[in-house]
Order: sequence, then structure tokens, then C-alpha cells
Amino acid sequence: MFKNLSKLLSQIKPSNHALLQKAQVHLDNLTKPVGSLGRLEEFAAKLFTIYEGKFPLQINPALHILAAGDHGVVQEGVAQNPQEVTHLMILNILKGGAGISVLAKQNAMDIILLDSGHKGICPEDIRARKINLLEETGNIARERAMSDELCEKLILEGANTVFQAHQKGYRIFSIGEMGIGNTTPATALFAKYFHLDPQEITGPGAGLSADRVVHKAKIIQKALDRHDKEEKKDSAFHILASLGGFEIATLCGVVLGASALKFPVIIDGFISTSAYAAAFCMHNAVKDYAFLSHASAEPGYQKIMEKLQEKPMLDLSMRLGEGTGAALALGLLRSAQTIYNEMATFQDANIQTDTYHTK
Amino acid sequence: MFKNLSKLLSQIKPSNHALLQKAQVHLDNLTKPVGSLGRLEEFAAKLFTIYEGKFPLQINPALHILAAGDHGVVQEGVAQNPQEVTHLMILNILKGGAGISVLAKQNAMDIILLDSGHKGICPEDIRARKINLLEETGNIARERAMSDELCEKLILEGANTVFQAHQKGYRIFSIGEMGIGNTTPATALFAKYFHLDPQEITGPGAGLSADRVVHKAKIIQKALDRHDKEEKKDSAFHILASLGGFEIATLCGVVLGASALKFPVIIDGFISTSAYAAAFCMHNAVKDYAFLSHASAEPGYQKIMEKLQEKPMLDLSMRLGEGTGAALALGLLRSAQTIYNEMATFQDANIQTDTYHTK
Repeated sequence: MFKNLSKLLSQIKPSNHALLQKAQVHLDNLTKPVGSLGRLEEFAAKLFTIYEGKFPLQINPALHILAAGDHGVVQEGVAQNPQEVTHLMILNILKGGAGISVLAKQNAMDIILLDSGHKGICPEDIRARKINLLEETGNIARERAMSDELCEKLILEGANTVFQAHQKGYRIFSIGEMGIGNTTPATALFAKYFHLDPQEITGPGAGLSADRVVHKAKIIQKALDRHDKEEKKDSAFHILASLGGFEIATLCGVVLGASALKFPVIIDGFISTSAYAAAFCMHNAVKDYAFLSHASAEPGYQKIMEKLQEKPMLDLSMRLGEGTGAALALGLLRSAQTIYNEMATFQDANIQTDTYHTK
Repeated sequence: MFKNLSKLLSQIKPSNHALLQKAQVHLDNLTKPVGSLGRLEEFAAKLFTIYEGKFPLQINPALHILAAGDHGVVQEGVAQNPQEVTHLMILNILKGGAGISVLAKQNAMDIILLDSGHKGICPEDIRARKINLLEETGNIARERAMSDELCEKLILEGANTVFQAHQKGYRIFSIGEMGIGNTTPATALFAKYFHLDPQEITGPGAGLSADRVVHKAKIIQKALDRHDKEEKKDSAFHILASLGGFEIATLCGVVLGASALKFPVIIDGFISTSAYAAAFCMHNAVKDYAFLSHASAEPGYQKIMEKLQEKPMLDLSMRLGEGTGAALALGLLRSAQTIYNEMATFQDANIQTDTYHTK
């Protein structure tokens, strides 16, 4: 178990990049033109490296960790939907009716839901766990989202969920979220971490009209100004406590925990990527363990990808969150595993490598 | 069974586009912001329309139809790999070691291999069928690829493979190919069908160097000039017979057959898309039944997509062919089916639609 944040961070090490080359030698000996399976090869080599060179690759079973939380900043009119939808969607997720419920089932992912603090009582369910009694974050336009203590606790809860799941045998993790209003703290985090202008990167979230997007950008700017004026510390961690969300802090912990334990973690869309960005700014080596699954339609997304030097796996104009993009990406990682483990080599197929083995 | 091409074409009808709207009403009542599952919703609505409004959607089981053929034009030095690789890869595919072999298995697709005419004896295998005794097409730079009679026969073989498979219960089809040198006829077809300049759209295929790409473009131009000078007829069908390939004609038939029988057909990458383009130029309504799976890295691909008004489902820098992109796309179509069939409605989840149901 991870006892505190500094110990958690100290356990994160870069993966052994020399193994990438070893993986590529294997991939280049499979019966196909060199490089012709494109990013599937990139994913396979990264998985091989994460699992420290073990063959065959074994990414199953998969656990999806979904964190839910409510946001005080919805008082400012930044969300399209009323706050109660967070609770109703938690019920729907556990009942099996949400997008992530059906896609996780289809893609053979188990789900655990971390109630990171929301307005409502999470039903008793073996797949759900309440990790914070507060009902919503502070309104970040006027006050910090949460105390440093709570932020650290939520990070550790996320990381230790990975720890416990790994003891049960899970070998790959994914993150997703539910929280009405959470594009606002996510956008604030991106703006602060990557020095981006809220006016340029704020988008409609679940469906705000253009004038309300302008309003939302102003609220985010207000939160950033409040942070710069009032906060004494400006580390990645303090920024998360000041401008983030309960579910975002929890998912940041999942990313850190998976990285410390050397397991791959699939990042869903915009909000989950803000949790990844927080983790990345705390420790760059999380990059070696993360797979960014799905592009976001939010206008800042491309700039954020440039800052993170990432390219998402899928772009299907999805913007639901919950982990729906991560569920689809898991299928692609299973395909990467399959080609790596099961394709014949040139020797197997009696093909001269000097004929078919070309750059 | 389809007896001749004109009867096959006469059986192809557009899907009932009114059903797209009915599908969208259903999708808009599922527990998510309207449109937030992006292209998964588009795919689900298209499937609902193809299956004539039946609920639940049922796309399983899936059959992958892989056609293989050899090309006389390789005499011109347009291919990176020796022609014998076509035969060796056929053996590898049937033995289970090729990219498509392992990805089809992972994605629960059965495979049938149509030996459309290649240099070598296809092994006896319940999954393989020889449909043409010729060993390679004519060298399209100097003569037509095949006779009109053979072209029609190959199209009908493709279409009737769908016919027979549908009688066995298959409900979705995909196409892929193997044939050393086949980017050359594919590029020639695109150039001719869509009035594109070979110099602009010719690419490296499996890995040609830049100077050899220039040479390949010249050979394609020579084939086009030969066609324009010598061929008396210029219909989509005659262009296919003149400039195409055995496997391309076969796969064109698969697209036509699936469309006539109202089943979805997933199109793989560059070569398969040329077969789709031939089918599309014979009968535009095939568009209603086709899913273009994976973008090609060939330089002409974007222009071809503009002409076809299509956007592929995936872009993972893959360029192997065989149907590897189609296999991954099948997973996405299963996800589209899953959300359509299994997600809760707002009523199920006790959510007021006027709160969460926003454009």
C-alpha cells in the first residue's frame, strides 16, 4: 500500500527503454513488411517494455476505475446539466445502463466505481466504494477545490485501488469519470499546467451554447486569477488541490499507482487526460505507462496533446467520458498483444527475410 | 445465386434512409448527452438502416472474405517484394500465422480465402477456394488485366460467396486482400475512376524507395494511356477488367453481393478500397452498406476519400492489408451495436430528458 504521496512518487521509475528495441526486433521478424502494422506495433512494443520484457504479453484481466465527484463551481452556471445528474448517472452506471457499463461488458473489463465525493448516497454495491464524505469541491472561482490533505488522500485512494486490484490479478487499468461540471476544473488544470489561455481552450463540454462557453472561460480565468493571488504554493500537486476535482485527484492517483507498479493505464478523454496531466507534471515517467485512448472535441485538445507530446489512439468524435473511449482502446491493445504473441515469423513461414523484410 | 452482373446490379437498392432518423430518435433517448457517442452513433444508425429497422441489432456472426491474386505488372519492377510472396503468404494465412489470421481469431471473424488466380497451388483447406486457373493478370502497362468474361466471373464468385455465407447465417462481411504488386492496379483504378494524376497519388506500397515510386507512377500512367488508346468501352466494369486485378474484381463482387443482400460490408485499406470504388462506380447505392475501416498512408488516400465522401473509422498508420484494418473496425461496429441495444434510456434511469437531453 502507498502510505503517502512522496513515497508513491519515489516508486515511479521510467520503463527500460532498451526493451523497446528488443520488441522492435521481434516485430520486424513477423510476416509483414516492416512497420506495416503501424501503431499496433508501437503499442505492442510499449506493452512489452511496461511488462519488463516478458513474453508472451499478457494484459488480461482488465479493470476500469471510474471516479465520480461533484463540483462547487457549477454554482457559476458553467454546466449544461443539473448537478443531480452525477448521482443519477452513478446509479445508472452501477445498474448497467450507462455507456461505460455496456462497453466495459462488451470489452471484458471489470468496473470499480470510486465515489470521490458527490451529492447523494452511493448504493451498496461490491463494485462501488465511497472514499470521501464531502458532497462537492469548493467553487474554484472563489476558493480552492479541496485541502492539500484531502487531495493527497484521494490520490492515495486511487493508487491503492490499483495496488489492491493488482493483488487480485488485474494487469491493465483504465480511467474514466462522471461529474457534472468537470470540464471546468479540467480546463483550468490544463491552462495552469501548460500555460494556455482559457479563452482559447474552453469548450462546450456536454453541450453549452456559444455565449455560455464565453462565460465558462471567464469563470476559469477567475479561478486561475484566484489561484495566482491566493495560493502560496504552485507545485503540480498544489495546483490539483486548488483547481481540480475530487474525481480528477483520484484518477491522478490511479495513473501514479499503475506507473509505480509498472502496469499500463489507459486514459479516457478530456477530464481523464487532465488527471493524467496532473500525474505527468508530478512525475514525467508516467508517460511510459499511459495510453491516451480517444481524442476530445474540446477546442484545447490539440494544444494539450502537443504539450504532452501524445497522439490519441482513436478519434470517433466521442465526448461522453466515463471511460467509453478507454473501453474501445482496450480492444486495440488486445490486438497489439495478439499480433505480438501470435503472428508467425519469417522463419515459420519459410519466407526469405531479405525479400519481404524491407524498410 | 447471382447469375450475371446486370442482374446482380439490378438487385442493389439504396437503404431506407427514413430509418436513420428513427435510429437517431432511439440514440437520443439513451442516457448520454445527445450525440456524445459520436461516430459510434453514426455506425449504429447505419447498421439499423441496413438491417431494415430490426431491433436489437445483430451483426454476428462475421465472415472475412480474403481474395488473393498475382499481377503481371510486377514485370515492370513496381513491387518491393518478389511475386512468390503472394503464394507464401496464402500458406501463412491458412496456417494461422499472418496478421489477418491472428486478428480475425481475436475478433471472432471467420475467414474464407478466395484464390482469385495466383502462381502456386492453394492447399486443400475447407476455408480456401480456387476460383480462377490463371496465374496472373495481364501486365496492365501493355495489355488488359483480364477478359470481360473473367472479370464478370470473378465478380460473381465474390457476390455468390456472400450469398452462400448468408445462407449459413453470416450477417456481416469484410474484405481484405493479398497480392504482391497490387497497389499498382489499385492506384490505376483510382486514377481512372476519379480523374486523379498518378504522379500525385502513387505511393510506396509495401516499401518502395522514392525513385522507384516515380517509376511506378510512370508505369501506371502507361497503363492509363494504353487503356485510353486501346479500350473501346469505358464503363466502371470495363475499367476494372482493363486495369484491375483478379482479387480486386472478386472483392468488388463481395461489395456488390453484400449490398444486394442488404448486409454490411467492412472495407479494409487501399486495395480493398479500390474494389469498393469499382463497386461504387457501378452502383452508388453500395455506399449505404459499406464501412471504410482504416485510412491508408498512400499519398492519394485523402483525395480518394474526398471523391467517395467517406472518412475511415481508424487511422493507426497501418498498411498491411489482408483485412487487418477491417478486423479492428469490426470491434468498433460491435461497440456501436452494444450501445444501441443495451444502454438504458432516460426513462429507465429516471432522468428528466429536459435536463440531460441537450444538443
